[in-house]
Amino acid sequence: MTQIPDKSTIHQAAERIRPYVHRTPVHTSEAINKLVHASVYFKCENFQKAGAFKSRGAVNAVFSLSDEEIRHGVCTHSSGNHAAALARAASLRDANAYIVMPENSSRIKIEATRNYGGIITFCAPTLSSREKTLEEVKDRTDAVEIHPYNNYMTIAGQATAAKELIEDIPGTPDFILAPVGGGGLLSGTALAVKYYSSGTKVIGTEPEGANDAFRSFHLKKWVPSENPKTIADGLLTSLGTLTFPIILNDVQSIVTVSEASIVEAMRLIWTRMKIIAEPSSSVPLAALLEKKFSFQNKKIGIILSGGNTDPDKLPW
Amino acid sequence: MTQIPDKSTIHQAAERIRPYVHRTPVHTSEAINKLVHASVYFKCENFQKAGAFKSRGAVNAVFSLSDEEIRHGVCTHSSGNHAAALARAASLRDANAYIVMPENSSRIKIEATRNYGGIITFCAPTLSSREKTLEEVKDRTDAVEIHPYNNYMTIAGQATAAKELIEDIPGTPDFILAPVGGGGLLSGTALAVKYYSSGTKVIGTEPEGANDAFRSFHLKKWVPSENPKTIADGLLTSLGTLTFPIILNDVQSIVTVSEASIVEAMRLIWTRMKIIAEPSSSVPLAALLEKKFSFQNKKIGIILSGGNTDPDKLPW
Repeated sequence: MTQIPDKSTIHQAAERIRPYVHRTPVHTSEAINKLVHASVYFKCENFQKAGAFKSRGAVNAVFSLSDEEIRHGVCTHSSGNHAAALARAASLRDANAYIVMPENSSRIKIEATRNYGGIITFCAPTLSSREKTLEEVKDRTDAVEIHPYNNYMTIAGQATAAKELIEDIPGTPDFILAPVGGGGLLSGTALAVKYYSSGTKVIGTEPEGANDAFRSFHLKKWVPSENPKTIADGLLTSLGTLTFPIILNDVQSIVTVSEASIVEAMRLIWTRMKIIAEPSSSVPLAALLEKKFSFQNKKIGIILSGGNTDPDKLPW
Repeated sequence: MTQIPDKSTIHQAAERIRPYVHRTPVHTSEAINKLVHASVYFKCENFQKAGAFKSRGAVNAVFSLSDEEIRHGVCTHSSGNHAAALARAASLRDANAYIVMPENSSRIKIEATRNYGGIITFCAPTLSSREKTLEEVKDRTDAVEIHPYNNYMTIAGQATAAKELIEDIPGTPDFILAPVGGGGLLSGTALAVKYYSSGTKVIGTEPEGANDAFRSFHLKKWVPSENPKTIADGLLTSLGTLTFPIILNDVQSIVTVSEASIVEAMRLIWTRMKIIAEPSSSVPLAALLEKKFSFQNKKIGIILSGGNTDPDKLPW
């Protein structure tokens, strides 16, 4: 697929993935609404298959392949949720999933990838090592690469989370917030909003310590993520060549938040909503805590992107 | 109310509390089903108002009082979830809630009680001090005591959790499991099952370190909880004079579990289901992990009783 997903592509993605992913619930919290003076609707992708929205894009991409295309399997490099999600999606089609993972990936994410049958090749924790190792895997296996975000079928899959959120919020949301790493979720969210709720504004939210999307957006020029440092381990990567133009065109703004606010937001979600949010998925609420834009008394949707966090390594 | 709640009393409780409590969702986990070789349905009372099933009994009891009866407020002694639940229920009727709390109660439960407007009197952490202090509070205020479990209106309120779970499980569950402390939840669960799903067996689950209900049940003679020692801080109390006869009559069995299994169950719920369960609410799953009765390939409902736990004090 070589064009930005249109409305029918996202509609088809929703139909395609329906048998294989959860329609996750939308939760609210009176305590959090009081605290931020707004009505906040959390789309609970922490309850998604494999614990994150990544299952949507992975399933959509994998199930878009013909039997012929998938016969040598699929491959990717990922330190995180995309790895497990792709392994699971491939297993649903009885295909191999070759996953290149940096050797410092979290134990819990390595285990999840392995439990779904992923065939892991470890590499050094640098982008060049990840890419070089993936090329070797591709040469050896002839597997099809499914990029975690720089792939229109991945993006169309991620768009379905915001589509469902729009359907489940009573009335029209004023804002939808999503975290931004490589931009697959944010660009998908922006497309879903454009097609299904054009009166809604989309805000990207990013840690200060990994602010390449913030800088790229405001400079209108792609800048890479260099030495990112944040607890939000899903948001370390640079924007992709496919995700950046969509974000530039269809996202209202990108704001950044401090590490302290991310931890505070995560604690609030845990203690008030009784659900497990990983640090990356707590970044949008952190933006509300920091009052990073004007949202008082508004209706706000948040994509709570995932819940894969190691209970032995909590940030408090 | 002086008689064991009948079916219409439980029906009325469900109607009475409906506007003031959540109809909590039922969650399942493929990973947990595979692990225990059964289909398990978790009734998520951790998402209940004030974070625990206790809101059901407290609201039912408080809203059963006439304006005349409630005019001097309500009172109770509780170290935990009933304290916050009663404070909240009273505030919904603009009534005072006088709560006697042991001075070693958890910080998070004291804060919750205070946030709902509870007027707290601290006492020494012994039953005699709790009872003596409560008598002083009653003499001073003329408030109506709402016992956390030894009160038929409380029991009828707690019964509504199992009633909803029975309605939401597809088909008939073979077993419903609940933790047992004072027995309000377990006796309510047993009554709901008797009236709404008589083919289902009810199993009480209790920590080995606080096994008074287990001993009372099997001896058919009330024995007190003496020096209980368990991480499940909601299950320390003895059975009540009203709850014990119901349990003896309508519960199939009571089983006990080790502290290690409780922690393992709690971790499983956190990491697999991405929800926060407090230790007490992890006891039923611990009984499945320990294979404490024959349930392979059966359909099992679990009352996941609450989610109030201090993220700074985790048992791992």
